[in-house]
Amino acid sequence: MSRAPIRILGIDPGLRRTGWGVIDSDGNRLTFVGCGSVETREGEALAERLRAIHDGLAQVLREFVPLEAAVEQTFVNKDGVATLKLGQARGVAMLAPALAGISVAEYAPNQIKKTVVGAGHADKTQIKVMLKILLPKAAPRSTDAADALAIAITHAHHRTSTALKLKVAG
Amino acid sequence: MSRAPIRILGIDPGLRRTGWGVIDSDGNRLTFVGCGSVETREGEALAERLRAIHDGLAQVLREFVPLEAAVEQTFVNKDGVATLKLGQARGVAMLAPALAGISVAEYAPNQIKKTVVGAGHADKTQIKVMLKILLPKAAPRSTDAADALAIAITHAHHRTSTALKLKVAG
Repeated sequence: MSRAPIRILGIDPGLRRTGWGVIDSDGNRLTFVGCGSVETREGEALAERLRAIHDGLAQVLREFVPLEAAVEQTFVNKDGVATLKLGQARGVAMLAPALAGISVAEYAPNQIKKTVVGAGHADKTQIKVMLKILLPKAAPRSTDAADALAIAITHAHHRTSTALKLKVAG
Repeated sequence: MSRAPIRILGIDPGLRRTGWGVIDSDGNRLTFVGCGSVETREGEALAERLRAIHDGLAQVLREFVPLEAAVEQTFVNKDGVATLKLGQARGVAMLAPALAGISVAEYAPNQIKKTVVGAGHADKTQIKVMLKILLPKAAPRSTDAADALAIAITHAHHRTSTALKLKVAG
């Protein structure tokens, strides 16, 4: 049985810079579709920065029409101010696909590293190397865009595994 | 010179419950317009809960058409998980008025208490008593709705003070 490819949007939220990456997943085949980042100005009012993140992602959703979305589960550190900033950006980043009627999966950072590199404690360089192998046509210009693609790949992998398991079970 | 009353929306964000309160401010005269809270279900996916907060506030914005909005500045505590949750709800709560083209002011918790009660360390009961005096027609059924009204009053007070100062200076 052949299935239609699933278009996946990965998002790496941040108040200053939110990365996004879109891929098509067709069974084990992954195809790069697009990536980039939405940047906001540090001097602007918080509500305006959040609006910029929303508008940027809404444009990506309109342009690429993904069917599913995924974000990284946030690592909570001791810096409460940073956690709050990230939380605000993350809330808006998760809302954008939800408003478009798209489900948003969450993956832990080490789950993403394990999926893309094979080790839960991989560093940024190893992720970049693997991205080049998995998505040869992708040339992310920022770490956020690269991370967003890694999140999209993780979702592609886990949703396929789930589908295969169901097939075996059925 | 008489000015038209300004309709203000106060928001007290929370992932489980987001309070909202709408008042009209006409110089020193405050009039209660409406209040309530948007609740989300704990078992639901995070993106869906954030969407529920957005949809609830978007409905309030459509129904009451406020001209300005205000939220409480978040107190960052040591509980990173709670801070992240609140941050996510707060991001979405600030986005809703921003998407409607409305500016969103931020006030510190003790600034709100000082404005409404006269002391920066007032407790919830004192705020409720003062709300009853300042807005006799308001009967908020939740603490979140009462807090949202207190935030709206704070904004009404500070924007008036600013206007008066400008008048004196001019």
